Amino acid sequence: MHAIVYDGARVSLRTAPVARPSGDQALIRIHKAGICNTDLEIFAGYMGFRGTPGHEFVGHVESGAPEWVGQRVVGEINVADGICDLCQRGLPTQCRARTTVGIDRHDGAFAEYLTLTARNLHIVPDSVSDDQAVFVEPLAAAVAVPAVVDIGTRERVIVIGAGRLGLLVAQVLKLTGCDLSVVTRRAAPATLLEKWGIHSTSLDALPHNRADVVIDCTGNADGFASALDLVTPRGTIVLKSTYTQMPSANLTRVVVDEIRVIGSRCGSFPEALRLLEHRLVDVESLIEARYPLERALEAIAQAGQPGTLKVLLEMAS
Amino acid sequence: MHAIVYDGARVSLRTAPVARPSGDQALIRIHKAGICNTDLEIFAGYMGFRGTPGHEFVGHVESGAPEWVGQRVVGEINVADGICDLCQRGLPTQCRARTTVGIDRHDGAFAEYLTLTARNLHIVPDSVSDDQAVFVEPLAAAVAVPAVVDIGTRERVIVIGAGRLGLLVAQVLKLTGCDLSVVTRRAAPATLLEKWGIHSTSLDALPHNRADVVIDCTGNADGFASALDLVTPRGTIVLKSTYTQMPSANLTRVVVDEIRVIGSRCGSFPEALRLLEHRLVDVESLIEARYPLERALEAIAQAGQPGTLKVLLEMAS
Repeated sequence: MHAIVYDGARVSLRTAPVARPSGDQALIRIHKAGICNTDLEIFAGYMGFRGTPGHEFVGHVESGAPEWVGQRVVGEINVADGICDLCQRGLPTQCRARTTVGIDRHDGAFAEYLTLTARNLHIVPDSVSDDQAVFVEPLAAAVAVPAVVDIGTRERVIVIGAGRLGLLVAQVLKLTGCDLSVVTRRAAPATLLEKWGIHSTSLDALPHNRADVVIDCTGNADGFASALDLVTPRGTIVLKSTYTQMPSANLTRVVVDEIRVIGSRCGSFPEALRLLEHRLVDVESLIEARYPLERALEAIAQAGQPGTLKVLLEMAS
Repeated sequence: MHAIVYDGARVSLRTAPVARPSGDQALIRIHKAGICNTDLEIFAGYMGFRGTPGHEFVGHVESGAPEWVGQRVVGEINVADGICDLCQRGLPTQCRARTTVGIDRHDGAFAEYLTLTARNLHIVPDSVSDDQAVFVEPLAAAVAVPAVVDIGTRERVIVIGAGRLGLLVAQVLKLTGCDLSVVTRRAAPATLLEKWGIHSTSLDALPHNRADVVIDCTGNADGFASALDLVTPRGTIVLKSTYTQMPSANLTRVVVDEIRVIGSRCGSFPEALRLLEHRLVDVESLIEARYPLERALEAIAQAGQPGTLKVLLEMAS
């Protein structure tokens, strides 16, 4: 099969043998895969990953775990051991021995085939297209936000960063009826937000220390400083993206104003699938470009341009 | 009266007029006052404070608010306006227009007299001595910890920093029945902890990423890094002290391990008074030295020595 491989220095398209599913694994024929910021960070050395990246995908099970064969599926990315203390506490996404699809010691979806334990699979309803289903993983990350902080019609909420993830978080939060603003300097996301009836604004236009909840989707050190500047005393900052540098953080402000800072990563696939099935979020509008797997290097280059929304890899069927 | 005054450069003992209580204020004759890290930070420029510091005190009301005259009292330090959005939400300690006794635009208790709004006063029960009551303010800060994070018999909890505040936090947390360890390198706090039946240990002896809750009472940048190293994925770090520098914080770890970081400052005076009344914490053992107000400069110098526990100023009665 064709597969994208990162060897620690270069990304390349290679021909690789199709892995044979073992035990409870399914062999998934990939239909589409999305390129995410984490992929770009991996190519800059994040997690020391080697192998085939890609963790946003939709496909169908071709062999392996018999009851799954023929099903169209998406897959959770954390492969848990089921026996560590965190798995036993019902936190498999934080399994201490986990591998992570396309991120940490587990080949990913920028390939024609992926093998993955069937425990991680979710069936995609017929009413959800491949274009929609490829967003289930990042949409699950977005629904994780209201899972860690109460957000209702009383809350003043600001999303900083209207990129691939921020635009999903914003749509999920709009469903809560909260008083929502999204910070962006770019025209394309502002247009999308307007279409969705979500207020977009600039940092300068927002009052200091008034937001009950600020979600930092910027992935840069300035994002945390801006969030601290916007959040009210006793408010909550949710961090949704990893940081390339180690930011200096004004922890004294966190103490004096009794702020909560909550890191948030993966969320519920069933919730994300339900939002897509009921047309409660618009993911198709985020698709900016489509490339065949063979042109993945071009796709990755485009995804790395600032302001680019979702770039998809589409595998030949 | 005699009062300690910080003019932005030097601390000195001065003779000052006794303020006349106005409106709802009480004039409090100070019996004792405690020296806290925040006082030492003020003398290093924190909050740009000018005037009489001191926010841990016990005294009696000599004049002003008539129903309070003659009562032995302690006082909350945040003087709220009652009308801002945070006061209206029941968060007067975070009042946007607040002054803070001995910390921010409000003279404090390192003096023979203090004027303070009677709304902030709490009566000290007869069974609670002045030596105990002078700890109500920091003990309230300690009881604020279990108010922001659920701690029960299941939780593995680590307190980093066994100074004046850490030793109060440790005693409060012991009441929850949690699996508690306190990190200290010093002999004196280790002896106290042993007396109280609390496990003390060194950082090196603790496993990485296993504690459900870590409370940082160190007040230095290393404290946060140590807390991150000790806390389990999905665990909670409570920050209890302000930081003299702005630490570099590994926020990527906060995101990937979905950690909560909660700043905590002031707590409930009634709860602290109840703990003292029922002899549930031992505060007297923290008293390391007593000085008359006239020797406050020596007292402050001693309080600034690393490892010093509580130094009290005792006013002539």
